[in-house]
Amino acid sequence: MPATAAETTAMHRALALALEGPRGVNPQVGAVILSHEGAVLAEGWHRGAGTPHAEVDALSTLAPGAAQGATAVVTLEPCNHTGRTGPCAEALIAAGIARVVYAVDDPGQESSGGAERLRDAGVDVISGVCATDGAALLHDWLTATNLGRPHVTVKWAQSLDGRAAAADGTSQWITGPEARHDVHRRRSAADAIVIGTGTLLADDPALTARDADGALLPHQPRPVIVGHRDVPPTAAVRRHPHPFVRFAGDDLVAMLSALHADGVQRVFVEGGPTLASTFVREGFADEVLAYIAPVLIGGPLTALTDLGVPTIAHQRRLSVIATHTLGDDLLVIARPHEIHTQGDI
Amino acid sequence: MPATAAETTAMHRALALALEGPRGVNPQVGAVILSHEGAVLAEGWHRGAGTPHAEVDALSTLAPGAAQGATAVVTLEPCNHTGRTGPCAEALIAAGIARVVYAVDDPGQESSGGAERLRDAGVDVISGVCATDGAALLHDWLTATNLGRPHVTVKWAQSLDGRAAAADGTSQWITGPEARHDVHRRRSAADAIVIGTGTLLADDPALTARDADGALLPHQPRPVIVGHRDVPPTAAVRRHPHPFVRFAGDDLVAMLSALHADGVQRVFVEGGPTLASTFVREGFADEVLAYIAPVLIGGPLTALTDLGVPTIAHQRRLSVIATHTLGDDLLVIARPHEIHTQGDI
Repeated sequence: MPATAAETTAMHRALALALEGPRGVNPQVGAVILSHEGAVLAEGWHRGAGTPHAEVDALSTLAPGAAQGATAVVTLEPCNHTGRTGPCAEALIAAGIARVVYAVDDPGQESSGGAERLRDAGVDVISGVCATDGAALLHDWLTATNLGRPHVTVKWAQSLDGRAAAADGTSQWITGPEARHDVHRRRSAADAIVIGTGTLLADDPALTARDADGALLPHQPRPVIVGHRDVPPTAAVRRHPHPFVRFAGDDLVAMLSALHADGVQRVFVEGGPTLASTFVREGFADEVLAYIAPVLIGGPLTALTDLGVPTIAHQRRLSVIATHTLGDDLLVIARPHEIHTQGDI
Repeated sequence: MPATAAETTAMHRALALALEGPRGVNPQVGAVILSHEGAVLAEGWHRGAGTPHAEVDALSTLAPGAAQGATAVVTLEPCNHTGRTGPCAEALIAAGIARVVYAVDDPGQESSGGAERLRDAGVDVISGVCATDGAALLHDWLTATNLGRPHVTVKWAQSLDGRAAAADGTSQWITGPEARHDVHRRRSAADAIVIGTGTLLADDPALTARDADGALLPHQPRPVIVGHRDVPPTAAVRRHPHPFVRFAGDDLVAMLSALHADGVQRVFVEGGPTLASTFVREGFADEVLAYIAPVLIGGPLTALTDLGVPTIAHQRRLSVIATHTLGDDLLVIARPHEIHTQGDI
């Protein structure tokens, strides 16, 4: 039996409940328990790593036996995994749930298989209800889960001829206000903003996401400083709403793993040229944003430095996703070009 | 009295006659002599420097006295200048022409004033007839006349990050076929195509303008080689339909003057990076065409080298005229930014 109107309504509620939970290393999930007649018996959501999953959170509000024969409506396939909490599939079976309606399959290698476990226990399972909304809710988490690390956007501003600064290092401002506002808006959508100590010392950036009037946007990414040099006592980043995270050294794998474990799903890399080039060279730039100003500068200070391309066959080919005009500037958004060999779809 | 229908028809004919003349250091000009009743008495056009101007060419076909009371319809204001030929204004007065109808004012400092001279002699003068067509006909010549040198387009192909080649110098092909066809089409619209000896020796380009099938386009720009090194006996440019022009040294002013004197109105500079940068640095790039491929290369081989920009306040600001998508590539067409101070219009 496909999802009933009451179940679809409950899914919309579950999607809203999911947003009550934190955006972190675990997905945001919401759940609603419906009686056989479609009345709401309980609601729940996941409150972060180490806390009960959404369906168990909902069940926990019910008296023993109250869920017997009920339907669980969940935004994500119930897990089949004993981690810091037990498998939700078992909890639902134990509670006597007769039917489970969920939006999106669990993509985790360890946690998937919940639907199968439920069906084996005789539970009626329906998947794909409000799947688009469910996938949108989980998109960042799915991306990071599939990558096994945060999604990385590398941003730089350059002259048409690829320079970040004039010969003496001056660069403010190559791009115009529209481009800078766009950067702030995109910063605000990230969980962390990463810069190298060279840029920190040269520009002393605040690393906040601000509106056109300079006011802080509601969401502020955590500032992350990479490199060997110290952060000066007077650095503007020390006045950021979030304390900065410090990675001494240049092990990007270790840094991205640590950020991922800390719940960071989207990283915004703002340079400078050395750090941006390291991300591109090591294959960690999932998306690049090149803000191109209509100026020519020439000289030695390029926006990207060495990418480890000895010969043209090794150039890093991109797929341009979009180009936008921002005032006088141009924004090119691109991703690494996927090479499809014969037989790929 | 404004232009009559017969005069407008005669102007269309004069514009067509003008195209019979060569495109060179002198403008293309056509002329038609009409009787008082509007019948065509004579036609003429300018056949190049040192030969009679169009109106004198037309008058020369008439018997003495035959132009008495007639109307001269000319695409350009009759000149008032004694150069290798006498002033046309005087010739028209001497022939008894009663009325002159022309399209575009003569912008030359020495040659202008013909209309005033004619009016002073009692001739009825009407200007601005088919002015748009007349200006289009004269556009390249007017541009070169206003500049006092050929109009210069500097073209380069680059990666998104501003590189012309990988570290080992390999670069074929950064841009795709659509971008290359666009280059050939634009080459064909130029009078001369300029490269440095470094590019000649590195790439051995044919410097021809070809269609997608490799066939020569109808108009081929003259190849011009700049620099100190010799052109090898086997160089592909030696098989160009036009013999190449050689400028040893790096005096762009002298080179552009010589090309201008030789009738070149549009120059297409194709590099390499050193030559392109010299044109930009010395302010001779009236238009730049940056063909941007969606690739990242990094490393030392930038599409432009040093532009003499010591600090950011001296960056060369451009006005983007157009951006075009060509296959996977992007073409940015830009011109030097005009700085308008208060009081400018």
